[in-house]
Amino acid sequence: MSLLIRSSYVSHLTLYQPRNSKSSSFTNQISFFFSSFNHNPFVNLVNKRNPTIMQSVSSSSSSSSKMAVKSSLIDPDGGELVELIVPESEIGAKKAESETMPKVKLTKIDLEWVHVISEGWASPLKGFMREDEYLQSLHFNSLRLQNGTFVNMSLPIVLAIDDETKEQIGSSQNVALVCPQGDIIASLRSIEIYKHNKEERIARTWGTTSPGLPYVEEYITPSGNWLIGGDLEVFEPIKYNDGLDHYRLSPKQLRKEFDNRQADAVFAFQLRNPVHNGHALLMNDTRKRLLDMGYKNPILLLHPLGGFTKADDVPLDVRMEQHSKVLEDGVLDPETTIVSIFPSPMHYAGPTEVQWHAKARINAGANFYIVGRDPAGMGHPTEKRDLYDPDHGKKVLSMAPGLEKLNILPFRVAAYDTVEKKMAFFDPSRAKEFLFISGTKMRTYARTGENPPDGFMCPSGWNVLVKYYESLQESEESSKQQAVVSA
Amino acid sequence: MSLLIRSSYVSHLTLYQPRNSKSSSFTNQISFFFSSFNHNPFVNLVNKRNPTIMQSVSSSSSSSSKMAVKSSLIDPDGGELVELIVPESEIGAKKAESETMPKVKLTKIDLEWVHVISEGWASPLKGFMREDEYLQSLHFNSLRLQNGTFVNMSLPIVLAIDDETKEQIGSSQNVALVCPQGDIIASLRSIEIYKHNKEERIARTWGTTSPGLPYVEEYITPSGNWLIGGDLEVFEPIKYNDGLDHYRLSPKQLRKEFDNRQADAVFAFQLRNPVHNGHALLMNDTRKRLLDMGYKNPILLLHPLGGFTKADDVPLDVRMEQHSKVLEDGVLDPETTIVSIFPSPMHYAGPTEVQWHAKARINAGANFYIVGRDPAGMGHPTEKRDLYDPDHGKKVLSMAPGLEKLNILPFRVAAYDTVEKKMAFFDPSRAKEFLFISGTKMRTYARTGENPPDGFMCPSGWNVLVKYYESLQESEESSKQQAVVSA
Repeated sequence: MSLLIRSSYVSHLTLYQPRNSKSSSFTNQISFFFSSFNHNPFVNLVNKRNPTIMQSVSSSSSSSSKMAVKSSLIDPDGGELVELIVPESEIGAKKAESETMPKVKLTKIDLEWVHVISEGWASPLKGFMREDEYLQSLHFNSLRLQNGTFVNMSLPIVLAIDDETKEQIGSSQNVALVCPQGDIIASLRSIEIYKHNKEERIARTWGTTSPGLPYVEEYITPSGNWLIGGDLEVFEPIKYNDGLDHYRLSPKQLRKEFDNRQADAVFAFQLRNPVHNGHALLMNDTRKRLLDMGYKNPILLLHPLGGFTKADDVPLDVRMEQHSKVLEDGVLDPETTIVSIFPSPMHYAGPTEVQWHAKARINAGANFYIVGRDPAGMGHPTEKRDLYDPDHGKKVLSMAPGLEKLNILPFRVAAYDTVEKKMAFFDPSRAKEFLFISGTKMRTYARTGENPPDGFMCPSGWNVLVKYYESLQESEESSKQQAVVSA
Repeated sequence: MSLLIRSSYVSHLTLYQPRNSKSSSFTNQISFFFSSFNHNPFVNLVNKRNPTIMQSVSSSSSSSSKMAVKSSLIDPDGGELVELIVPESEIGAKKAESETMPKVKLTKIDLEWVHVISEGWASPLKGFMREDEYLQSLHFNSLRLQNGTFVNMSLPIVLAIDDETKEQIGSSQNVALVCPQGDIIASLRSIEIYKHNKEERIARTWGTTSPGLPYVEEYITPSGNWLIGGDLEVFEPIKYNDGLDHYRLSPKQLRKEFDNRQADAVFAFQLRNPVHNGHALLMNDTRKRLLDMGYKNPILLLHPLGGFTKADDVPLDVRMEQHSKVLEDGVLDPETTIVSIFPSPMHYAGPTEVQWHAKARINAGANFYIVGRDPAGMGHPTEKRDLYDPDHGKKVLSMAPGLEKLNILPFRVAAYDTVEKKMAFFDPSRAKEFLFISGTKMRTYARTGENPPDGFMCPSGWNVLVKYYESLQESEESSKQQAVVSA
């Protein structure tokens, strides 16, 4: 039985093997998985994943109307999608009440978390974490529900306040949340205030306390020594008025859209870089594999991260323009693709963060999640090495408590095939004929005005990047000139 | 229902409230627990703990013979106690075979872990962790069993090797383990070798990478850059020949002893300090509370840690002599107390380590675990503060995956009552009349030859400590003199 399941799992995975190659780095790595899981008395990736796949396949063979009736392909964590926007009829009263509460000023990133929590991306979380939730997240990457089951919760979703604010709150049970522009946008009720041990939070979340972690330096280090948890009530849906709000679909809206399209499988692709043809190859190949598995209408959720990113990442507006070109050029099929913004800030916390990225997509209705090499990883801030083992993200994700119902699709490395003159799945048997173009290298091409090899990215998408880096240099030069003038 | 359970739980806990006080720091802290758990949509300490208590109470009311038939009060993790000692009949062949295997040299602490694993303290772990177990331990503090349930596993139980040893192992599937004295004592089979990222291991285990962590400096920093996992086979039970081996009962031996004594409850007390009358008060009080709860024969497992401890802790042999005096003097009742050595090394990793301390005692048959303030904690190595929040150990333990079947007994702080001239549970209403004597302060008393207040510790036990510190000073002085002579 276990063997049967295993073999069926293998056949599922080996679909990813290049037709014209003996083996690939990916399938090698899977066989490594098995060699380790065979010995492991505890974990069985297969038993966790397969039932979901089987179930999906069988359900996919039923009528598409039945799909629609289901209203979603996968239940939100906790069984019910959390939504914390105050009903229209109560807004007036709630706002008036909040005026009387002690005020907590939010940073830009706090606001992104308010957005995330209010729309249910973190379901079943109903507000910023209280200490018992914080401790479970920090130590177990999961929260226990009253029925004894676990939901995944790998990142502490917390709100920091300083000593002065704590003083002002005193013994109040509720506080008002004030956005950076100065308006009260939400309240936090039945609050709990507890110590913010930054060193421990950072060490347990990133696995290092090295200086130079972007989220830490931008957000945690300057933050207060206390954390405040409670139940969140948001007065209006969070908008950014940056011309991109129409891309910001909530989990509820996404689930509705998947049903409108009669999706019988939804595969999510998280990214924070421009889409090159390697990504496209992967996404199109994944859809083909899902069709081969018996699904009738797999929908791609192309889900760029929209919150805080480090300074040298390509800004959101540029990425969104680039993504739209990729769809206009038909590199991805608009009929079977939904492009939407994931409002979470980026931690660059590797294996810990990739769990959050996957968990949030469950709440948005995705039942397949594509995971690549070194997800949410970065170079070590002070040492010449990757901060995380590039394989750990995939492995941790596959074993994470609360993610059993999600199908994890590890993806094969795509690189530029210098013979075929196009992006293709890496074939180790002719490794020398492949050129690896990392996000960093891609950005360097665009910055220096050098063209990447033909077939790396659709020209219109590439022009978006080139224009961005040109504008960047112009602004740098003009600021230099201003500096000279003012000197 | 939830309220009913909650109230019964409260009544169970408030048994710990001093009769003559309005409230105590402990009951305050419990009420804090409830204020937080009331708000918490996920966790319910009560639902986790109470069924076990109810079940134990009801079973305790049945015949003691039925107790004996059960052969244990609580199942080992994984359902079966792991024992990895090779059967007598196979030892010859196994030893001969191991001679042909690549050799891995063990440190003193490695050997302590071989001891721990071989006797099943870490059940269901069958050897040093492979990478998937290591990653689950590091990220989730737990391991998933094939049936989908979790067992707690908060400390990575791993064996490090250096580049040269890895080279020598090459592609061998099995290795022989060589103890510090040079004998082959075990083999590790179907091995897996993976990277030892020390920084990440330390950060995720201790919540800090600060220099000065005893276990890290003694063991991890000097260790190799690779970890080797596999299935352990030990040729003979591990012995230390230090005159204390008779105290080292295996989980199997302890379970047998509990049954011989017809225990219907076993409460474990982990310590690495001499037993003072505050500890005794607590342990005797706990037994009384368990009798009040309906248990007929609660047995105390007084379980000092016997592995690696930091330099300024009192050595094991001195502690064992001190403990025996405490029993001789009748401060603890030998009839209802079992003194045994827990062979694990000490990490001083606070909330992460206390889970290990509790989990290992489940495997030894304890169904109640006493937890105090700041368990397995220490001062921050470089900052003037506790490394961990003193309440976090208790909270994390109460929420830890895989420990649901264990009854956690948070204990009240005992201090020296300067009015009653004895150790008593701290009464905040007359806080000024209490004197707190920490382990550090106790050691200072003994080192300086100053007597602690009457009633702090039984005189014969105290003399053991005084003698130890006298001998320490003598050896220090003689070594100074030698230094002078040789200078």
